[in-house]
Amino acid sequence: MKISHIEHLGIAVKSIEAALPYYENVLGLKCYNIETVEDQKVRTAFLKVGETKIELLEPTCPESTIAKFIENKGEGVQHVAFAVEDGVANALAEVESQGLRVIDKAPRKGAEGLSIAFLHPKSTMGVLTELCEH
Amino acid sequence: MKISHIEHLGIAVKSIEAALPYYENVLGLKCYNIETVEDQKVRTAFLKVGETKIELLEPTCPESTIAKFIENKGEGVQHVAFAVEDGVANALAEVESQGLRVIDKAPRKGAEGLSIAFLHPKSTMGVLTELCEH
Repeated sequence: MKISHIEHLGIAVKSIEAALPYYENVLGLKCYNIETVEDQKVRTAFLKVGETKIELLEPTCPESTIAKFIENKGEGVQHVAFAVEDGVANALAEVESQGLRVIDKAPRKGAEGLSIAFLHPKSTMGVLTELCEH
Repeated sequence: MKISHIEHLGIAVKSIEAALPYYENVLGLKCYNIETVEDQKVRTAFLKVGETKIELLEPTCPESTIAKFIENKGEGVQHVAFAVEDGVANALAEVESQGLRVIDKAPRKGAEGLSIAFLHPKSTMGVLTELCEH
């Protein structure tokens, strides 16, 4: 697999409105988009820092994966997304041939039109890991 | 504060030896250094991905902060470090004037000769946040 950079960090927050003043006024980053992904039960705010994006993830209901994450572990980094250069499908095939567990058997559409797939944290030393490609 | 990029992600692992095959053979990253930081009770492996480093953090004893982190939350991302452009001391002063809690009142020496300081996760929506500068 060829990874070029960290595409984004997914950070679980209880409230985007409560979190943004820290990211914008203290860290000096700029939120350039907020969108709701209904099927993921999440509202997302995007900020850019260098070549990486920060995605603040706010649950839209108590059944959201993000709500459960916050309940179990508290607010914080929920996943790390790596940009792959040779296609998410190829990367997934490689990963599975190496015996790792994946959450997505095939690439699917993610935020911002990315092709994405998640690896299972049981196979990645606890880090929920996303592979993605524009 | 002016942040240029994410300098590194600190990832808590039980064992660097157990984690490296995933990072090197699956993700294709390369570990370029392993060092022990005695006073932090941690052994660290460094890998580069784009402009960001991944620091795998392995506790060297049960009293290590990293051991406690793993006990409470499991293996995973333990901190995020931002590279600041205008000096860590200036950034700290700014942060404190904005009423945030900090862990380090003044910059101290971190791994790889960086000047570093940690903000308190109570003030950063759960993300243990490091500011650093070469």
